[in-house]
Amino acid sequence: MMTKDELQARLRVAKLHQWLGLEVLEAGEAGITVKAAWRDEWIVNPARGYTHGGILATLVDVVADYALAVHLGGPAPTVDLRVDYHKAALQGDLTVKGRIVRRGGSFACCEAQVYDKDGELVASGRGTYAVPQK
Amino acid sequence: MMTKDELQARLRVAKLHQWLGLEVLEAGEAGITVKAAWRDEWIVNPARGYTHGGILATLVDVVADYALAVHLGGPAPTVDLRVDYHKAALQGDLTVKGRIVRRGGSFACCEAQVYDKDGELVASGRGTYAVPQK
Amino acid sequence: MMTKDELQARLRVAKLHQWLGLEVLEAGEAGITVKAAWRDEWIVNPARGYTHGGILATLVDVVADYALAVHLGGPAPTVDLRVDYHKAALQGDLTVKGRIVRRGGSFACCEAQVYDKDGELVASGRGTYAVPQK
Amino acid sequence: MMTKDELQARLRVAKLHQWLGLEVLEAGEAGITVKAAWRDEWIVNPARGYTHGGILATLVDVVADYALAVHLGGPAPTVDLRVDYHKAALQGDLTVKGRIVRRGGSFACCEAQVYDKDGELVASGRGTYAVPQK
Repeated sequence: MMTKDELQARLRVAKLHQWLGLEVLEAGEAGITVKAAWRDEWIVNPARGYTHGGILATLVDVVADYALAVHLGGPAPTVDLRVDYHKAALQGDLTVKGRIVRRGGSFACCEAQVYDKDGELVASGRGTYAVPQK
Repeated sequence: MMTKDELQARLRVAKLHQWLGLEVLEAGEAGITVKAAWRDEWIVNPARGYTHGGILATLVDVVADYALAVHLGGPAPTVDLRVDYHKAALQGDLTVKGRIVRRGGSFACCEAQVYDKDGELVASGRGTYAVPQK
Repeated sequence: MMTKDELQARLRVAKLHQWLGLEVLEAGEAGITVKAAWRDEWIVNPARGYTHGGILATLVDVVADYALAVHLGGPAPTVDLRVDYHKAALQGDLTVKGRIVRRGGSFACCEAQVYDKDGELVASGRGTYAVPQK
Repeated sequence: MMTKDELQARLRVAKLHQWLGLEVLEAGEAGITVKAAWRDEWIVNPARGYTHGGILATLVDVVADYALAVHLGGPAPTVDLRVDYHKAALQGDLTVKGRIVRRGGSFACCEAQVYDKDGELVASGRGTYAVPQK
């Protein structure tokens, strides 16, 4: 299993993850927790300061994938992604929790929840990831 | 119905859409076509220059939603989003086509396809959008 | 809130639910548990006796919806449904647990897990349901 | 490629497909068309005679999968399934069209549309299927 520091280093290889300011808060067998640092460019609605749903979808994808990466030693290609939007995400850092639902021999189902700075669930979803074949 | 120029102006209100360099190429009753201008920050894999799946998911969401916006006069909140990844999207501008699958009284199902600079389908998907009630 | 007996009576109105042999085991604020009685017609693969994925999808839809019905007094129309298949479901009764992920004013996101007779998770998923407007 | 008769014979192996009265109307490289014969047990709402959404989901899954089966020589396991409901399906036979969206080496994305007896689109969706490895 990857350590928290190894996960952080691997996560930061992707330029988009640097831009999202991703920081691993926790990484373990049961799942991971990652923080994303608010950026002005995330805004979809300047009047209200809402975060764009595409940013939330990206966070679900990344954190679900890296909950698996901890076990695989690196991320797996996303086959498909599904995201439910629960409430508007106002300006502020986001915290995302990811875990494996089930890992099979050739693909894994993983899920993630996105929380706003007040701890409210703003989005959640699942992805199917292709487990690399030896 | 919104004109192409009205759609472009409305699309650019969102800061994330500016960052994505979105430009409306076509807008009509049957659907819309939008171009996204490549950015280095989109990279997920620096060795190969692949575009992050979160960017592709964002483009599916935006263009599916704005295919509906043409008719509504503005975008509708995304209820849920589903994206299939078909092949790696190499560095380069992306072209996205969106259309309404079915519009009901309180929600609409819309879909979009993302093509790379060689015209290859790299991702596609659907969203459910909440049609505003008068 | 509907009682377990009210839920059972309402569930049995649908002929398909009778055919599936649905029986409410538990119903509460936190969620519901429903049992489905195995039928030979569910088989997709006679050599191995596997249950068809369509039956599992149906059970996810019904039990996610009725976890909401307990609160609404009746089922809500399914807007969309997403199901992940985790392992082959061999012959035998199935147990399904459903709960509300989040209920908004016009839509609710609900989920359900399907377990085989040995308590193994065979499928799970989510639906978006249209909350009736007064 | 499988012929229409081979496809019909293979489809009928599953007991659930017999119960659904599935009949292959067309089978070709571009896709397949399958008819399902109405049954009273499909009803979700006896007062209005609506078809249960689980039946529509099952039809999307089967016909998307068999659009791929034509090429593979047999069906592939469903990894995940997503279905959008467009309008209530009243009593009557249903016609389902399926096609491959994209087939990769280990996964295929396939989709299907369900039409009622008046030719109205009642549901549509997609599945991810695991292409068997030699």
